[in-house]
Amino acid sequence: MSQQSASSSLSSPLPLRCGNIEETPTTPPLSDYHAIDQQLLQKITYDALVWSSLHGLVVGDKSIERSGSVPGVGMVHAPFTLLPASFPESHWRQACELAPIFNELVDRVSLDAKFLQDSLSRTKKVDEFTSRLLDIHSKMLEINKKEEIRLGLHRSDYMLDEQTKSLLQIELNTISSSFAGFSGLVAELHKNVILRNYLHVGILFFRNILSHYGKLLGLDSKRIPANSACSQFVEALGKAWCEYNDPRAVVMFVVQAEERNMYDQHLLSFALRERYHVMSIRKTLAEIDQEGELLPDGTLSVDGQAIAVVYFRAGYTPLDYPSESEWRARLLMEKSSAIKCPSISYHLVGTKKIQQELAKPNVLERYLENKEDVAKLRECFAGLWSLDESDITKKAIERPELFVMKPQREGGGNNIYGDAVRQTLLKLQKAKSEEDAAYILMQRIFPTMFETFFMRSGCCHKNQAISELGIFGTYLRNKDKVIINEQSGYLMRTKISSSDEGGVAAGFAALDSVYMT
Amino acid sequence: MSQQSASSSLSSPLPLRCGNIEETPTTPPLSDYHAIDQQLLQKITYDALVWSSLHGLVVGDKSIERSGSVPGVGMVHAPFTLLPASFPESHWRQACELAPIFNELVDRVSLDAKFLQDSLSRTKKVDEFTSRLLDIHSKMLEINKKEEIRLGLHRSDYMLDEQTKSLLQIELNTISSSFAGFSGLVAELHKNVILRNYLHVGILFFRNILSHYGKLLGLDSKRIPANSACSQFVEALGKAWCEYNDPRAVVMFVVQAEERNMYDQHLLSFALRERYHVMSIRKTLAEIDQEGELLPDGTLSVDGQAIAVVYFRAGYTPLDYPSESEWRARLLMEKSSAIKCPSISYHLVGTKKIQQELAKPNVLERYLENKEDVAKLRECFAGLWSLDESDITKKAIERPELFVMKPQREGGGNNIYGDAVRQTLLKLQKAKSEEDAAYILMQRIFPTMFETFFMRSGCCHKNQAISELGIFGTYLRNKDKVIINEQSGYLMRTKISSSDEGGVAAGFAALDSVYMT
Repeated sequence: MSQQSASSSLSSPLPLRCGNIEETPTTPPLSDYHAIDQQLLQKITYDALVWSSLHGLVVGDKSIERSGSVPGVGMVHAPFTLLPASFPESHWRQACELAPIFNELVDRVSLDAKFLQDSLSRTKKVDEFTSRLLDIHSKMLEINKKEEIRLGLHRSDYMLDEQTKSLLQIELNTISSSFAGFSGLVAELHKNVILRNYLHVGILFFRNILSHYGKLLGLDSKRIPANSACSQFVEALGKAWCEYNDPRAVVMFVVQAEERNMYDQHLLSFALRERYHVMSIRKTLAEIDQEGELLPDGTLSVDGQAIAVVYFRAGYTPLDYPSESEWRARLLMEKSSAIKCPSISYHLVGTKKIQQELAKPNVLERYLENKEDVAKLRECFAGLWSLDESDITKKAIERPELFVMKPQREGGGNNIYGDAVRQTLLKLQKAKSEEDAAYILMQRIFPTMFETFFMRSGCCHKNQAISELGIFGTYLRNKDKVIINEQSGYLMRTKISSSDEGGVAAGFAALDSVYMT
Repeated sequence: MSQQSASSSLSSPLPLRCGNIEETPTTPPLSDYHAIDQQLLQKITYDALVWSSLHGLVVGDKSIERSGSVPGVGMVHAPFTLLPASFPESHWRQACELAPIFNELVDRVSLDAKFLQDSLSRTKKVDEFTSRLLDIHSKMLEINKKEEIRLGLHRSDYMLDEQTKSLLQIELNTISSSFAGFSGLVAELHKNVILRNYLHVGILFFRNILSHYGKLLGLDSKRIPANSACSQFVEALGKAWCEYNDPRAVVMFVVQAEERNMYDQHLLSFALRERYHVMSIRKTLAEIDQEGELLPDGTLSVDGQAIAVVYFRAGYTPLDYPSESEWRARLLMEKSSAIKCPSISYHLVGTKKIQQELAKPNVLERYLENKEDVAKLRECFAGLWSLDESDITKKAIERPELFVMKPQREGGGNNIYGDAVRQTLLKLQKAKSEEDAAYILMQRIFPTMFETFFMRSGCCHKNQAISELGIFGTYLRNKDKVIINEQSGYLMRTKISSSDEGGVAAGFAALDSVYMT
């Protein structure tokens, strides 16, 4: 796996949708902007809170009942950073460039049913959730179900490894990629904060109290790439709806019963109505089981309503399937002619086991002809191994700090770090069960730590932080015709980092944007 | 007082800023649209709640601490009606046409210091608040303080009397006219609800379940006048700032320490920054007392910051002056060269006593030369009397249901209705004190009751309701030059009406918009 920096080969601007970045030869890094005047900080903080409230950058407040089920009540601003996070322009462009290649890869791999079944055969034995997904996949194979219209709304997440200065993929989300709605708002918010700051600073300047303004004056809002994730996701959903070609049908958002992140979703459904006059409904898996039926022509009907596109914003975690009811709903949808975003195949391609299998030598080549594309993808792959590779397992027991153990289970919080890696590996070796198939090993990535201002519950806190860059990708094809294959905006997320854990992120993550350096 | 309908003389469209109303000969009234399909209602309700959340139509939730002081926390949608309120186009145009005349009247009366002092001399003895305002007014007269730049952001409130079919003025607000920010959002929301409704209805139509859709299909979003109150208020504040002509100076919003309606204000300050690059600060009267000073050249400086415009969103009620500190702040501002919105004179012109004095025969004529203007204003005056008019007092004791007693005190909730009018009048007659000067008597207006859907705390309730139309007016002059004199959007407010009280509004009011019939 090459970890050579891509900056040299990408020094000229690429024709990507990464926003309009002017070529500025010397942009100062942002790491120093925290020597900021306290009065100025207060003003910027207040303005940012106002901005988020007036622009719908809100979530349901956990402490308030109904805030996850009824819109308009119990709202609080979404957590965000006050200022954008530095990111090298070359790595940013590298990440953007990967999106259409990953889109294509997902589509091709999804068609290789044998690869999916074989790769996941051991995982299936020890992971109930994967097993159920594979069962649905098998049933579709049995009835020879074809998905002619395929819609992918993906997000590939990366970190920048500090030591090697390389962009490394954390995971590829093929289901329920969130924050396409909010991420553009945060970029706008940060542009606004920077522009407003100049007005505040101008006033402070007049008042001769600008002695401690720090580096904030050096910020250039043009270096925050425009983020069109929302409109591009909506475009993909709208065009998929067109391809389905039934004016009576609607888009169905499959949602959790309690969803405090509903406004990120509402931004999409609102834009879908405004721009494409496409209506959407929101249903839980349980509701779909109760109200759904398959019409003789294959149409999915829910509560008497024909469904053109099934857009999953739930169903990615075992927690979303508390009973057989939810699995029946999933199967029903899969059997229908509705466009599934994602189909069961697309969902499986996004599993960690497949991510690890694709990183093996000569696997990518089976799906992508273009050698440059293959090289580009491989460059972003971190070290990925299954636990049956004994030399790696041995090394991980010796140097657990260099590895992460990732269970197949979705959700992030289940990863194993540090000495727990050694202990878990030893336990699995003793047990000699198939339980090891529930995990993969991944090279530990150490991103750069930096200080930033976190805005949460109306308060501003300065903390050590690490960032993760997600690049959205949209893909739509109908039979042989690729209708959309694009990089579609980005999501920057910044997490409070406790140095005790050597850079491991705590649970809390704030929405951020990219500041190109 | 003529109560003849103005519709005949206003049948041709006027060149007013009432939005683009197409001439549709037969528009059905809205009173019937409540036989609406329940499923459709649920969808519209949900969409409206989402819309309000995504567009900043929010307030602080009373039940949540910090929601009145910190933006971005404890938000809930502002109360609004789901659908707009019918209003005859002729009366709507009549109300719009009055705005510039009232603007001019306020300005002229404000210059007649003797009229203000004389008219309020008896009120002064019994109303402490009016007395303190008059003291400041007197002090300004003593130092011969002139306000060369005068800014008025007024709102004249009307009801449509059902019996006489006449538009009658309730009151004229010259201080802290609220909801210029939100009223435009509600008009947009209602247009959106109507447009969205067609999409929902379209789907229901396809599904053949449209048997009970009611009259909603007949609604035409173009009959909701565009409402530019926010941008016009901001324009007036921005232009006033320009007239003050000090690039270092800012606009100061005088606010209450706890303000759950802060987002209505933030919409103005946000637009002021975005469109005019004019910064604003928010200060309470107590803070102004602590941080404010008068520089030798007359400049008002607060926390070291020069103030160009003082925009009051507090200070209209005695509750805002809990100590001498707040009165000192008010006096300090009045003595300064900052543009006051309103000046002490403008504030006094908006008192109920002055409203009643202006309604006396031959008073308007002293301020307005144009006889047509005088006639137009007089046409909207309800019966207004002071309590020393013994024949009226006698009549009110006999027929209290035809009158409202209004104390000078601001706030609305203090009005006296029904048998309490008789009892209060008899008590005042017995006491033979000057206490009667604290009240005026006003003709009781009986607006049309109708059913509407109230949206509050995420729930939809159908209730009997009455509406009140406020017309915003902006006025700016510098010496002899009138820079702005315009009608500037509107505020429709609809209140739950308990029929027990014969049409008296309960405290709860929802934001609404006008549907022209």
